[in-house]
Amino acid sequence: MPRIINVAGAQLGPIQKADSREAVVARMIALMDKAKGADFIVYPELALTTFFPRWYHENRAEADHWFEKSMPNAATQPLFDRAKVLGMGFTFGYAELTPDGHHFNTSILVDKAGRIVGKYRKIHLPGHVEYDPERTHQHLEKRYFEPGDLGFPVWRTMGGLFGMMICNDRRWPEAYRVMGLQGVEMITLGFNTPSTNSQKPDEGPEARAFHHKLSVQAGAYQNSTWVVAVAKAGVEDGFPMFGCSLIVDPDGRIVAETKTEDDEIIMHACDLDATKFGKDTIFDFKRHRRIEHYGRITSQTGVVLPQE
Amino acid sequence: MPRIINVAGAQLGPIQKADSREAVVARMIALMDKAKGADFIVYPELALTTFFPRWYHENRAEADHWFEKSMPNAATQPLFDRAKVLGMGFTFGYAELTPDGHHFNTSILVDKAGRIVGKYRKIHLPGHVEYDPERTHQHLEKRYFEPGDLGFPVWRTMGGLFGMMICNDRRWPEAYRVMGLQGVEMITLGFNTPSTNSQKPDEGPEARAFHHKLSVQAGAYQNSTWVVAVAKAGVEDGFPMFGCSLIVDPDGRIVAETKTEDDEIIMHACDLDATKFGKDTIFDFKRHRRIEHYGRITSQTGVVLPQE
Repeated sequence: MPRIINVAGAQLGPIQKADSREAVVARMIALMDKAKGADFIVYPELALTTFFPRWYHENRAEADHWFEKSMPNAATQPLFDRAKVLGMGFTFGYAELTPDGHHFNTSILVDKAGRIVGKYRKIHLPGHVEYDPERTHQHLEKRYFEPGDLGFPVWRTMGGLFGMMICNDRRWPEAYRVMGLQGVEMITLGFNTPSTNSQKPDEGPEARAFHHKLSVQAGAYQNSTWVVAVAKAGVEDGFPMFGCSLIVDPDGRIVAETKTEDDEIIMHACDLDATKFGKDTIFDFKRHRRIEHYGRITSQTGVVLPQE
Repeated sequence: MPRIINVAGAQLGPIQKADSREAVVARMIALMDKAKGADFIVYPELALTTFFPRWYHENRAEADHWFEKSMPNAATQPLFDRAKVLGMGFTFGYAELTPDGHHFNTSILVDKAGRIVGKYRKIHLPGHVEYDPERTHQHLEKRYFEPGDLGFPVWRTMGGLFGMMICNDRRWPEAYRVMGLQGVEMITLGFNTPSTNSQKPDEGPEARAFHHKLSVQAGAYQNSTWVVAVAKAGVEDGFPMFGCSLIVDPDGRIVAETKTEDDEIIMHACDLDATKFGKDTIFDFKRHRRIEHYGRITSQTGVVLPQE
């Protein structure tokens, strides 16, 4: 018996520095209306503002105005309200400033009744802490955010098992596996990814999209889970980011993909029971995994070369 | 300064039950001669015999004649001798029966001087233990082999850092990562993979090759390592296996691929220093991995669902 969840991926085009949160939320609501009939809609990482970690501030506090001190708040309440009327679950990312002064790159999972049922804080922060004159553009996530402190939880909601990751997490098989070991059936993933590698200018959009798809498709297949990967895309204040928002099935196949770098909806009727075949056969972890040989994965962070 | 190693992938076509080891070794030597100039040649899993785990014996000892009790032995000595003359390192897989009666699916790494410098025993055994009438064909690796007991070591040889995996290991990101955490620069992988899924007959060669490539390319990219994946292919005693032997670069790209399901050589001049960029930037493990959130990967074998 299929367990269908109608999923919408709501890609956002660029958000300029000058754009207000209210204007962005209006765009998000327009996409929600367009996706009417969906059970669940997925928005990107840092959905409310421009991708501000590309801007260097010597004084980090000067970036605090990009952060949200509560959620929902006045700017985002209309999104919560509209979703409740439509009976649509949703997830989006934002910069979170906690009451005790911690900064995280965060996403939340909201059920069809408008309740926040899950929070995830990005664990694999890419980039660097200090201004780097060698790069074609800055990527200061390690400056403005702390690594997430909530692990990779999986939540029971909307009739399934849901997990979240954010952007660079998708390149790390550990992230998928920790959720796979909790039986995850659908992983959402928001991203903002520059169209060129800041340290290798000849690595352009084709290569960037290749690595993106490769990582997402492998993570989906190897854990037999749906993955819904949604971009903020297009040119923000002169800096291009690629689109390629995807819905990937538990067999690793792309079943929907955006065609633009602008606000765009993709939809797919995802059968959560389609995750069962892989989980019961080739990726039946309890029969096949051999944790006695995986020790280095959790006992060492960096490379330890074999003895000379 | 590039560190070039000329690598040959030596795909073998089918080996029938009736074929002798001597006949197979003669084919392997012919491929070696064809690859003249290579520094290193990679042969498949269970290279010396048919893929015998498709045949059920109630008495397991009846399969012992497919196993090697020593290596090199009389049948394989000519391969070692020819490699030494050519100054070519090599690796191949075989069924190993130890003096104390253990059975493993094994591969060895032999340097240019003909010394066995590394041994690996397959850890991720696919398939099943008992005869399964539901399957279109049997895959009894779990019946005839014990899981490997040597971990995933990485060896310094031939001017680089080498690791081995076998067949189904390629679908498990843990296998690549344990070697990545030892700085591996080239992973060899022999395989025998049926062209259809024994439990899902509509999953044919296209899908099987898709999963194979996806897993190998993702493993290479996410650990910034070369991977040389070599098949035994074609129809063995009525059972088809796909080819798609690959050389994959540290960026995850396929740089060479076989075109047949028969004895065939692919070659590529692999620069081991091409692994550096990825290892120093996006996959610089010491800067980016967060082992405090990976605990489940080594603390639990199977799925533990979140509480209801």
